[in-house]
Amino acid sequence: MEQRISLITLGVADVGRARAFYEQLGWRGQEAEETVFFQAGGIVLVLWGRDELALDSGVTDAGPAAFDGVALAHNVRSREEVGEIVAAAARAGATVTRQPAETFYGGYAACFKDPDGHVWEVAHNPGFAFADDGSIVLPDFGQS
Amino acid sequence: MEQRISLITLGVADVGRARAFYEQLGWRGQEAEETVFFQAGGIVLVLWGRDELALDSGVTDAGPAAFDGVALAHNVRSREEVGEIVAAAARAGATVTRQPAETFYGGYAACFKDPDGHVWEVAHNPGFAFADDGSIVLPDFGQS
Repeated sequence: MEQRISLITLGVADVGRARAFYEQLGWRGQEAEETVFFQAGGIVLVLWGRDELALDSGVTDAGPAAFDGVALAHNVRSREEVGEIVAAAARAGATVTRQPAETFYGGYAACFKDPDGHVWEVAHNPGFAFADDGSIVLPDFGQS
Repeated sequence: MEQRISLITLGVADVGRARAFYEQLGWRGQEAEETVFFQAGGIVLVLWGRDELALDSGVTDAGPAAFDGVALAHNVRSREEVGEIVAAAARAGATVTRQPAETFYGGYAACFKDPDGHVWEVAHNPGFAFADDGSIVLPDFGQS
C-alpha cells in the first residue's frame, strides 16, 4: 500500500448546505450525482450524504456523534490567518470549539466544527514548513 | 482559506497498535511525543490518542461510534491491487466491511475499518486518474 491518501469524504446531512459552507470560505467544488468534489492540493475533499457514505462503506451508522474521532488540519502561513479563517468559518455557520491560542508545540491554532460536526484545526506551525503549493513535508524527527 | 488540507489526524485507543497496523501495510512513520506522523503524498496522516485529540480540539467525546461519518480513500492503479491491499489490511487486523466489487461509478473497490474503526476505501477508479506521485487531479465535470 503506497503511503498516500487520495480522497477524504465527509458524510453530511445536506450536501447543498455543506457545499455552501465550504464555498463561503472560498473553496470551489464540482457536483456530480449529489456529491461535491473539491480539489485540495493533490487530494480531493468529497461531500456526500452521510447515509449513502455509510451504506457504500458497508457500515452501520447511528448518526453524528459529538466527535468523529478524526480531525482535519489546515496549516497557514501566519498567525493572523488563524484568526481570519476561524472568524470566516464562524460567519459561515461553523462552531468554534477552540479560540485561537498558542499551542503546546510552539504554534498558534484554533479549531471549529463544520455544520455537520466535522472538526478542523487551523494552525500556524513553524515546525512543519510547507511548499508554495501547500504541500507539507515532514522534517526528520531524528528518531524511529 | 486556500483550498487544501495539511493533515488528517485519526484518534486512536493505542498509538503503538495503530502504528503497527499502518506499518504492516508498508507505511513508515515517525514518532514524537506519543504521536505518529506519516508523510502521505503532500499531506500528513497523524495517529494520536483519541482522548487527547478531542481535548485539543475542544470537543467532548463519547467514544468511538459505529461510523465516524468520514471515509478515507486510497486509489490504486489496478483492480488487482484492491484485493491485495484489503487482504493485507485484514491480516493486519482490519475488518473488511465491503468485499471487493464493482462500483456504481464504473470502478472497483472495497472498504475496511482500521483497528480503531476508521473507514478506508481502496478503489480503482478509471475516472480519477492520478499522477506518478499519487496526486489526484479532478477532471472537469462540465457543470458548476
